[in-house]
This record gives sequence, structure tokens and C-alpha cells, in this order.
Amino acid sequence: MRAYTIGICGGSGSGKSTVTRRIVEAFGNDHIVVIEQDSYYRDQTHLPYEERIQTNYDHPDAFDTGLMVSQIRSLQQGKPIEKPLYDYTRHTRKTETVRVEPRPILILEGILLFFDRGLRDTMDLKVYVETDADVRILRRIRRDMKERGRTLDSVIDQYLETVRPSHLQFVEPSKRYADIIFPDGGYNEVGIDLLVARLQRELR
Amino acid sequence: MRAYTIGICGGSGSGKSTVTRRIVEAFGNDHIVVIEQDSYYRDQTHLPYEERIQTNYDHPDAFDTGLMVSQIRSLQQGKPIEKPLYDYTRHTRKTETVRVEPRPILILEGILLFFDRGLRDTMDLKVYVETDADVRILRRIRRDMKERGRTLDSVIDQYLETVRPSHLQFVEPSKRYADIIFPDGGYNEVGIDLLVARLQRELR
Repeated sequence: MRAYTIGICGGSGSGKSTVTRRIVEAFGNDHIVVIEQDSYYRDQTHLPYEERIQTNYDHPDAFDTGLMVSQIRSLQQGKPIEKPLYDYTRHTRKTETVRVEPRPILILEGILLFFDRGLRDTMDLKVYVETDADVRILRRIRRDMKERGRTLDSVIDQYLETVRPSHLQFVEPSKRYADIIFPDGGYNEVGIDLLVARLQRELR
Repeated sequence: MRAYTIGICGGSGSGKSTVTRRIVEAFGNDHIVVIEQDSYYRDQTHLPYEERIQTNYDHPDAFDTGLMVSQIRSLQQGKPIEKPLYDYTRHTRKTETVRVEPRPILILEGILLFFDRGLRDTMDLKVYVETDADVRILRRIRRDMKERGRTLDSVIDQYLETVRPSHLQFVEPSKRYADIIFPDGGYNEVGIDLLVARLQRELR
């Protein structure tokens, strides 16, 4: 049976990962595999370093969507994949990959999951996690400063230069394709319970 | 066991009734009872007719929310109610009522379901059906002209005078309280299937 596939999309800091984690906690890793869109940033090994560092990671063009779609299709058909890994210091794909085994439920997570039609067509259920822009940037500042050692200025500059324009141009409009929208997603007990109930039926 | 209670809210023409009908079709009347907020327009028998016809039916003050909450609580506890009926020609409550028997699932439907806290607190799951304003007014024009014999001008006047201002002031902001939002609700197969899966679990 084809793996049931949920796409969880939303802006940076919207709470996508929390929703994903809550679902995984409800079922465990035996039943679910999570694929993050970030793993599919394009291989840029053929480009000089000076060009690679110009990459706008918030733009749809940054992703190797064809590879992502083909690996999703493999997992759905019960075949393992070799998932790419991205090296943010070298701004290109690593040479090593990670073997990912198929599971009955596949969760896709990313900011631009609903932008590409081929990618959308792999999903049985499309959830958009909607959180106000002020709350999202506050979460991003906290995360990037605490966990990634970034300065406040560098977080703000990146937000205004690429994150925000891409959100307005690509992420927010892709909400139209969602089957359901989660307001303030990560801490939405009732909404998560709804997804869990649907997946329980799938696993029976 | 307390009846599981879903609130389905959204603007005029959003597709609330279609969502409700689809859920009822999935389970049948033995399991579900639907309560429309419109049944709880205030009794205005004590007012002269000239005052009654001034009623703004799109304003929260038009509803007898206390009675609605108390009747929901009764149904939830397994007790039948005598649901009021509204007479739109006389602009007041009818003297006769309708007996409504309790069922394991209770669906509430209305434009201002999420405005009042006491009413919100009766619900286990709050769904907001979100449809663009242009689509909503087109549906309303078609419905009111075809089914209610209204003229185009009268539909437009009422929309601009009361429906639209109330939507912006009361309905749209109450979306914040929703657990999930249905984009373009009535024909949202995946979203409806999600609700059905949750209710199936409740009925097991």
C-alpha cells in the first residue's frame, strides 16, 4: 500500500517542526518517516564558492524539486532512498547521503512545499501552519541567536533581504493549495489530534 | 458520555452549510444533530413592529446566546430541548418550538459562533470556513435571488449596510479562535474526510 503522505508547510518560525514532532511522538519512528525540503537544496559543486554564497535559500529555485519528487515516489512505493545532505558552510551538497527506509506514513516539511505542482501532487493531505509575521520573526531571532550563534543584526538583515520577500511572494500565496490551515500551529492540540485521528485510520 | 461538539463558523456564503451537510451525510441523522445559530435570534415580541424591523441580524446583539448555550449544555448531557423557531416576517420568535433529541455528535453552525466565549467553551472542535469575499457575495446573490425571491438591489444594499461591516468587525476576527481553518470549505474533500475520521473515532 502506498505510504500516506502529509505535507506540512508554513513560513519560517510558523511552528511546522513542532507540528511534525507532535505527530511523530504520537506514532513513533516505526510508522513515520519525515523528509525535510531543506535536504534538497541544489548541488552547487560545479559553481565557484563566490557564486555559491550568493544562494537565496528562500527562493524556489534553490531546491532540486525533481529529485525530491522522485525520492518521495520511491518511498511511497516502499523503496528506500539515499537522501542528500546539505553542507551550509560549503554551500553545496555533501558527497555522502543518508539511507532512509520507507514507512506507512510520510511527512514532508518545508517552507515551499506547495509551490511546485509536481510536489503538491505527491501529497494526500496538505496542512499550512499559519502564524503571524511578528511571532514568526521573534521565534527565528531566538532560534538563530541561541542555537546557531548568529548576531541579531545578521538575523534581521537576512530576514528583510530574503526571508520576508520570499514569504510574501511564494510562501503565503501557496496557502491557497492547503487542505486545512492551522492557526498558530505548534501548540494547536485540537488540530494535531485531528491529524492523529486521520493517521490512526490509515494505520488500521 | 458528553456529546462531541463541533462548531462550524464562517461568513455568509462561505460554505458552512455544505460542510455540515457533508458530515451529516457521512454519519446519518441517528448520530448527529445540527443546531443553527439562526434559531436563537432574540424574542422581540415585546417590541413594536417598527422597532423589530430595524434588527441587524448580522450583529452579535441579535442573538440570545444565553439560551443557545444552555440548550447546547442540555443536549450534551443527553437531554432533549425545545428549540426556538424564528419568524422572519414578524421579526420575532414564534410561539411554537421544535423538540430536538440528543445525539452523540452535535454540530453548531453560524456566522457568529466564535464571538462569545461562553459559546466557544461548549465546543470540542472549532472549524472556520474561509472563502474569499467575492465568492461569498456571489453565492449570496444567487441564493437570495433564486431561493428567496429577492431583487439584486436589495441583496446588495443589505450586504453593504450590515453583512459586510459585521463580517469585518465580528466574523473575520473570530477566526483567531478556530482550531482549524478550511480554505473554500464546502468542496474540500480532504478537509471533510479529516473531520469524518475524527468523528468516526468518537463514535467507536
